[in-house]
Amino acid sequence: MEKNNIKKGWKNRVHEIIYEADTPLGKWFDIVLFILIIISVILVMLESVDEIDTKYHKQLLVMEWIVTIFFTIEYIARVISIHKPFKYIFSFYGIVDFLSTIPLYISYIFAGSQVLLAVRAFRLLRIFRILKLVKFLGEASQLKQALKASRAKIAVFIYVVLILSVIMGTIMYLIEDDDAGFTSIPRSIYWTIVTLTTVGYGDIAPQTNLGQFIATAIMILGYGIIAVPTGIVTVEFSKQGKSNVKDGKSVVHTSTQACPSCSAEGHRDNAKHCYKCGSEL
Amino acid sequence: MEKNNIKKGWKNRVHEIIYEADTPLGKWFDIVLFILIIISVILVMLESVDEIDTKYHKQLLVMEWIVTIFFTIEYIARVISIHKPFKYIFSFYGIVDFLSTIPLYISYIFAGSQVLLAVRAFRLLRIFRILKLVKFLGEASQLKQALKASRAKIAVFIYVVLILSVIMGTIMYLIEDDDAGFTSIPRSIYWTIVTLTTVGYGDIAPQTNLGQFIATAIMILGYGIIAVPTGIVTVEFSKQGKSNVKDGKSVVHTSTQACPSCSAEGHRDNAKHCYKCGSEL
Amino acid sequence: MEKNNIKKGWKNRVHEIIYEADTPLGKWFDIVLFILIIISVILVMLESVDEIDTKYHKQLLVMEWIVTIFFTIEYIARVISIHKPFKYIFSFYGIVDFLSTIPLYISYIFAGSQVLLAVRAFRLLRIFRILKLVKFLGEASQLKQALKASRAKIAVFIYVVLILSVIMGTIMYLIEDDDAGFTSIPRSIYWTIVTLTTVGYGDIAPQTNLGQFIATAIMILGYGIIAVPTGIVTVEFSKQGKSNVKDGKSVVHTSTQACPSCSAEGHRDNAKHCYKCGSEL
Amino acid sequence: MEKNNIKKGWKNRVHEIIYEADTPLGKWFDIVLFILIIISVILVMLESVDEIDTKYHKQLLVMEWIVTIFFTIEYIARVISIHKPFKYIFSFYGIVDFLSTIPLYISYIFAGSQVLLAVRAFRLLRIFRILKLVKFLGEASQLKQALKASRAKIAVFIYVVLILSVIMGTIMYLIEDDDAGFTSIPRSIYWTIVTLTTVGYGDIAPQTNLGQFIATAIMILGYGIIAVPTGIVTVEFSKQGKSNVKDGKSVVHTSTQACPSCSAEGHRDNAKHCYKCGSEL
Repeated sequence: MEKNNIKKGWKNRVHEIIYEADTPLGKWFDIVLFILIIISVILVMLESVDEIDTKYHKQLLVMEWIVTIFFTIEYIARVISIHKPFKYIFSFYGIVDFLSTIPLYISYIFAGSQVLLAVRAFRLLRIFRILKLVKFLGEASQLKQALKASRAKIAVFIYVVLILSVIMGTIMYLIEDDDAGFTSIPRSIYWTIVTLTTVGYGDIAPQTNLGQFIATAIMILGYGIIAVPTGIVTVEFSKQGKSNVKDGKSVVHTSTQACPSCSAEGHRDNAKHCYKCGSEL
Repeated sequence: MEKNNIKKGWKNRVHEIIYEADTPLGKWFDIVLFILIIISVILVMLESVDEIDTKYHKQLLVMEWIVTIFFTIEYIARVISIHKPFKYIFSFYGIVDFLSTIPLYISYIFAGSQVLLAVRAFRLLRIFRILKLVKFLGEASQLKQALKASRAKIAVFIYVVLILSVIMGTIMYLIEDDDAGFTSIPRSIYWTIVTLTTVGYGDIAPQTNLGQFIATAIMILGYGIIAVPTGIVTVEFSKQGKSNVKDGKSVVHTSTQACPSCSAEGHRDNAKHCYKCGSEL
Repeated sequence: MEKNNIKKGWKNRVHEIIYEADTPLGKWFDIVLFILIIISVILVMLESVDEIDTKYHKQLLVMEWIVTIFFTIEYIARVISIHKPFKYIFSFYGIVDFLSTIPLYISYIFAGSQVLLAVRAFRLLRIFRILKLVKFLGEASQLKQALKASRAKIAVFIYVVLILSVIMGTIMYLIEDDDAGFTSIPRSIYWTIVTLTTVGYGDIAPQTNLGQFIATAIMILGYGIIAVPTGIVTVEFSKQGKSNVKDGKSVVHTSTQACPSCSAEGHRDNAKHCYKCGSEL
Repeated sequence: MEKNNIKKGWKNRVHEIIYEADTPLGKWFDIVLFILIIISVILVMLESVDEIDTKYHKQLLVMEWIVTIFFTIEYIARVISIHKPFKYIFSFYGIVDFLSTIPLYISYIFAGSQVLLAVRAFRLLRIFRILKLVKFLGEASQLKQALKASRAKIAVFIYVVLILSVIMGTIMYLIEDDDAGFTSIPRSIYWTIVTLTTVGYGDIAPQTNLGQFIATAIMILGYGIIAVPTGIVTVEFSKQGKSNVKDGKSVVHTSTQACPSCSAEGHRDNAKHCYKCGSEL
């Protein structure tokens, strides 16, 4: 690492600040970014509250511009300082960064660009890395692997639940009146899922005796089948735990460094080359 | 297999197309069938939405006829091309196929034949086979076996829950007024199950202090006893997982082929004879 | 057993019919009892539905008398035919049998004896034995043992949940207005439990922003802590399963015979003496 | 222990009564304290019910004064009799004891001191020790350890759930009208969490078809991801159980004695020195 640093130009230094957290400047950048992401999400929320927007519209707009300008600079810096910019631009985070930067600009051209504001929330995912939550990243990847391993079983489960909902929803539509809220089969299916998952809004509820009897059956069914995904995931977690112990290490130590060419993260502490594209770190 | 193919007549070729997915024509047939099943279910849904039915009644009827005619041809072909047609006709899928074909015909004779449309949803179960989801079939059969093994325990559990609901429902009927919605014991039992399964519509809710106190007890009870089926199923899944590992193989490879005489599915890849009726594949 | 039968008087024969299911008459008795218990519970339900009670009051009363007379005879026969009648009379089933027999008699003396009708539902517990569900009894006792072993942990859990509810309920009472339904601390605690257990009726719901924020925290808490009883019970079930396998037998075979002196059930198939009081079977 | 008792002054004797439960007086003190804590919590509840407060205001106030005076004496005695009073004063229980004593005094100075009454509920946590529930303390500490071990995984899980809620809430705000209750993004997020945790009040419910479709997806998601914390906790409990068995003992026997200097509890039965500060017991 030290040897490479000597040969670095300004691009490399920018790269180090933005993509890594090992230098003091890099840490400061991460903290500022972290705060601005939180602010940007809170801004979107506050703007949606009518009373607040009416009162503090001007202040909110100023804040929005500050955040947008910082995000714009950050985005440009990210694109410039990386070796293979297109890999970043079309990566998940690249798209999220782009879409969460542009809404304010677009709002002067198109109305209804608010839709893009929802994208900002995805930026919150960066926080894992920003907070140097390497340990948490390890936990998250364990969870991810367990869920991945049980994917097929859960897909079968959800598929069966959906078929059940279609069948039960159709039956309830035939039994219950429109007055009770069962105005169409799609709406009856909506009700069935509300009941099966034990959410139970109560905006639609069966009125007839037969309808209430079937509803009861659906509830007990839903109460019982929740055991299935739980069982699947628990067994998978239990396997994960054991295989980790077998290897003798429970957590692989990863650095916060990102590859300068492809911006892949999660390199081992002692890695010299990117595990993805092979370029030197 | 190749040797048998030489001696095949048209019945055998039809059988191969309908019941198997190994030939190009068989694959095409499966894809068309898959799309038509999805369409047929969506058609039933759309017809139930008043605004859509009023506007596009004619188009929907035409689509309905196309689906019905295809299903009719398919059903006849299935009956003709199989060695033992009665086994198919009285099998689960045979009955589902029949009932999901006839509603349109019957609607010209009887009103209210709509009830049969609900049967169509069962056809969705075929998709597992159509999508060549052999791996999923393996997962599904694992889930099925685990649930089968824990059947007795779950039956005991549901039985105890039902007795509890009858007792609690009767008590709540005696405590609460008619105004709160507890107009009869069956309705009180309905409320108890709604509460015990944590669905909680809120269409019926206790008003008196004593009623709310007992409701609280029922909720905590329900919150706690959900642990029972989960525990049962998890332990059973965990056993399943271990016994599979013991055998050294985790998934038995099965072909998509169906037996020409009895239409049993799920034969091993290298099977020469049907595991059910013993006739050559 | 055969030797004893020779010396039996009529009391013994009545005992055999009522308490055992090994003779044809004993089986018939059990089936009739089973049907009458179900009928007696359904009768209580139907009487509570106003429309039905008004229309068929006479028929229901006749049925009620038939059931009551049969239960009366059965109760007297049980008391007479057993060696130690007081053990039966003050046992759980003895009290349930007595209380589910008397409501009709008392209704001519006191009004409001309906309360006792709720007791009838407990009779449904007999069905396990009646249906010769020895296997189910085994399962039920496994469940019981697992729950017994995890009793202390679950008590701690429920205790913590209750304290949490009291604290959160008091806080919500201070935050929310009476208009939202939070009229007193007990009612706020009721709402907290409704929310924490994910029942969510919606009859009481927070209106202020702060209230909704805390409600959100309670929900996520409730969503998370449901994992605790599930985890406890699952681990206990898993231990049960292992200890059973260790013994080499998974189910202890029990006969349907009951002890003639103390009416204890669940004797081993080859038992000669009651495991409880030691008298000959 | 016996040797030390000889040298004890009155401070030591007060300490023994208040902090320990091994002497008859200590037991009596604990029972009285237990009853007064329960009474103090019930008093707060009753005062909040308008009908009761209007009728019995005087009686409640007298009771309140009795409880307050006892708590005052107890608090002073605790501070005096301990070696290092500041450790107690700034410990969790010290602060709870102080805050649950002062509300009545403050109510004569400031209005709205009711807020502090909520603190009283925390006193209920003492009951574990008061009831000599050593066994329960063992169970509680097992639960605590299991939850502590799975803390990182649960934090990741809750964080992902919150991000999901922000994203889904924003989307629902854009789709649904104000009439349906989705008046701002924070409120939409509140609804999303209500739905995701399967609480489902029904005070806010989607009206449009698209909204109901997304709601359905959120429900199934929520229904599925409840498996994650359950799986995490179950695996952790299962590990706890095994490590306890490995040690050969399942429960560490602890005495009800508290350290005279730092008031730490949970010493081993045969402990001579406090495990925390090392002073003699």
